[in-house]
Amino acid sequence: MKRFVDLADLTREEVTALLELARRLETRPEPHALAGRILGLVFLNPSLRTLASFQAGMARLGGSSFVITPGQGTWQLETTLGAVMDGAAAEHVREGIPVLASYCDALGIRAFADGKDLAVDLAETRFNAMAGLVDKPLINLESAINHPCQALADWKTLDDLAVPRAGRFVLSWAYHPRALPIAVPAAVLHMAALRGMEVIVLRPEGFALPKPLMDKARSAAELSGGSVRETDDRDEALSGAHILYAKEWGATACYGQPEADAALRARLTGWCVRNDWFERAAPDCRLMHCLPVRRNVAVADEVLDSARSIVQREAYNRLTAQMAVLYRLLKGK
Amino acid sequence: MKRFVDLADLTREEVTALLELARRLETRPEPHALAGRILGLVFLNPSLRTLASFQAGMARLGGSSFVITPGQGTWQLETTLGAVMDGAAAEHVREGIPVLASYCDALGIRAFADGKDLAVDLAETRFNAMAGLVDKPLINLESAINHPCQALADWKTLDDLAVPRAGRFVLSWAYHPRALPIAVPAAVLHMAALRGMEVIVLRPEGFALPKPLMDKARSAAELSGGSVRETDDRDEALSGAHILYAKEWGATACYGQPEADAALRARLTGWCVRNDWFERAAPDCRLMHCLPVRRNVAVADEVLDSARSIVQREAYNRLTAQMAVLYRLLKGK
Amino acid sequence: MKRFVDLADLTREEVTALLELARRLETRPEPHALAGRILGLVFLNPSLRTLASFQAGMARLGGSSFVITPGQGTWQLETTLGAVMDGAAAEHVREGIPVLASYCDALGIRAFADGKDLAVDLAETRFNAMAGLVDKPLINLESAINHPCQALADWKTLDDLAVPRAGRFVLSWAYHPRALPIAVPAAVLHMAALRGMEVIVLRPEGFALPKPLMDKARSAAELSGGSVRETDDRDEALSGAHILYAKEWGATACYGQPEADAALRARLTGWCVRNDWFERAAPDCRLMHCLPVRRNVAVADEVLDSARSIVQREAYNRLTAQMAVLYRLLKGK
Repeated sequence: MKRFVDLADLTREEVTALLELARRLETRPEPHALAGRILGLVFLNPSLRTLASFQAGMARLGGSSFVITPGQGTWQLETTLGAVMDGAAAEHVREGIPVLASYCDALGIRAFADGKDLAVDLAETRFNAMAGLVDKPLINLESAINHPCQALADWKTLDDLAVPRAGRFVLSWAYHPRALPIAVPAAVLHMAALRGMEVIVLRPEGFALPKPLMDKARSAAELSGGSVRETDDRDEALSGAHILYAKEWGATACYGQPEADAALRARLTGWCVRNDWFERAAPDCRLMHCLPVRRNVAVADEVLDSARSIVQREAYNRLTAQMAVLYRLLKGK
Repeated sequence: MKRFVDLADLTREEVTALLELARRLETRPEPHALAGRILGLVFLNPSLRTLASFQAGMARLGGSSFVITPGQGTWQLETTLGAVMDGAAAEHVREGIPVLASYCDALGIRAFADGKDLAVDLAETRFNAMAGLVDKPLINLESAINHPCQALADWKTLDDLAVPRAGRFVLSWAYHPRALPIAVPAAVLHMAALRGMEVIVLRPEGFALPKPLMDKARSAAELSGGSVRETDDRDEALSGAHILYAKEWGATACYGQPEADAALRARLTGWCVRNDWFERAAPDCRLMHCLPVRRNVAVADEVLDSARSIVQREAYNRLTAQMAVLYRLLKGK
Repeated sequence: MKRFVDLADLTREEVTALLELARRLETRPEPHALAGRILGLVFLNPSLRTLASFQAGMARLGGSSFVITPGQGTWQLETTLGAVMDGAAAEHVREGIPVLASYCDALGIRAFADGKDLAVDLAETRFNAMAGLVDKPLINLESAINHPCQALADWKTLDDLAVPRAGRFVLSWAYHPRALPIAVPAAVLHMAALRGMEVIVLRPEGFALPKPLMDKARSAAELSGGSVRETDDRDEALSGAHILYAKEWGATACYGQPEADAALRARLTGWCVRNDWFERAAPDCRLMHCLPVRRNVAVADEVLDSARSIVQREAYNRLTAQMAVLYRLLKGK
């Protein structure tokens, strides 16, 4: 494995092998495996779990890391090819990224969507402008439409809790005061499909996930015996569900139009996950969320503080899953 | 020792044993003692000494650390229970803190006072909202009314310089352009009392330390043979003093009222420690301050640059004292 | 070697020995050489290469580091002696710097020019106010008129690419929307002279480098058999050139006068390095730049993306050169 930028670059078998490695390192730590190795972490957007868990993961394997946050103690980075750089950005990624790569053994990059043009974001224009410049092992720390580390951690969490492989996995839109990226819903949708689950995307009108992402998930489902469909009927979707994965995202019907998006979501404050959402679900139906979550806005306290919630386990598995990724990238098998 | 959140959780004998450990590690370093161990550091407020000395301390013991500064590359954290999170904070401490704790072997948290409601701050509401969520060794990096690392370092400094156990310790208010928290004066007051010193709090009208903090110090003094009293008579207080510990803090008579506080302190610019403050003190009376200090506002150059000043030693002992804390928390005896 | 603050503190032989050490560590890594050693890094100004390469360099030698960025999670630092600190800065360097030095084995400090008074900056007033307080090995991470780490890395790059010792080295002014410091041109000018090259400073009227810096370079050239002159004739300067080192800097004729500087540079947007600059140069003439560079403002894409550009090699050599500096400072020979 030379890069970890999209879970879809791996076969189902390669993913399960990676998760097996994660479990092995969890039970039989290898505190010197990556001694002397250095991970560079570039955050063009905020982070908590990714920032902490990658540093901790490298340290637990004996390596070290450095963090760069452009615009914050470091120059703002320009990503547009051919730009005449007379604005705020003092450095272009064409210099900055290869330079950072030359200082470390693996590089992680976080670059959220621009959120203006869906086609541009679906093409991963911003992330790829940087990824193409890296000649070292590369990790996607969340791009416009992907978050493979989250997806891998969530798969491990499903396995840890023995959620049935063919169980019903409902990815539900949840309310948020403003549009958020579709990276996590896209990554989680594909992950659950590749795992072989019965995946239902539950979302209000205007918030359908883009067709290329639905198609990608359906292809994964076909290979693994799962299925993918979408609906706006909450009762039907959640009936018998094993997992309710809540996530906030922006209106795709008016992508890049904050005012139209705000008008659409203004009517949807009821999409805050509460206990009564689980009435028809399987008795042990779990609540998943990638975090951060706005309490009592996207998910109510009563759910987050209940035994249904496995959000802490998901976050913890960022560490265990990423240690496997680091190990595979920097040490091989 | 499972937590280091308040020096008052330890007996006098436990404190002196901790200081003995600090001296042992100073003279006989153990560069591999904490190999593979990870310290997470969460700073909800600025820091220099704490930020640098904890990272250095872990490194000197063979471990490593990561730093999280919410609102700066990381989401702002909500601390209020039951909050409807439709404001600036994207993450609640109920998620963020346990997640970070799950990535490390010990967690340090800095959370200053809100400075609005004295009762709320005296109850350590904000810090405790987080501390209660941590199931790992926990370190208080400064909370609303406590700073045990500073207190421990100061005790070691008093010992290093052989300041008499029963010597006169004057904790004096000093001028500052605006209200600062009472964490350091509270912690230092208790420390000096527990060490067995004759403690005098010297402060102008309106700046008395809250009764619960005075009572706590008096209880400690009773156990150790020391004493605690307060005055606004500078000449009397400093007469024969061995230590002048200068510290700026907010008016407790109008806690949380910036305008009333400003009116009170406007008359008090004379409370800038100068050489003539020491005229009646013991010849070798020392100037202590936790730093940062505003030169020529709280303490004059002539004092800070004189041989009386032991502020550098205090700051250096943050490292030595905290290494003992880390060692005890992560390795035991 | 106790400090690395100015390449001019070293003889030509000492520099070449340091570069030999850099090459030795490049080919025969010593991953435990600085085990247990700690580097403190203080950035009063932004950084990318310095920030990342020093952390990576310490890690590659088995040591560790911590980063302090005053004003960003840390108090703003006052540098003026005798200041009455009633403004934004809560801490004076007279406290902050010795405290940080006491936590580490070597300290690096970045402090750009104030850019107001040329004499003040030429005297390195700001950097020296801190350097004088450090009793540990000290590294200049870029001061008002110096950047020895860049100079050393550039020398190594010239050697790596076998650029003739007596070759023609043209340090050319390049356009930038606003005045930048003269630290890099000053350091590179001296370095090329000390290496023994035929150094030509190519700059428009009003942008001559200050006489003390030209004199310093001429002294170095005399010792090494090189030469130093200046011109505003681009064709003549670049004729037969082996190196075109592009750098943006502020107008020295109106130093500290932003409006006069802006008026001067408004006419100079043509000083963006393009392919046609190289028409009379040596066939293998290289483009050097310390980075960050504003593409299509200071240097055109067509040059930066061509084989002439060795800016990546320069940046990579920050790591290799600084590892030698760290090794020499912390381990000796």
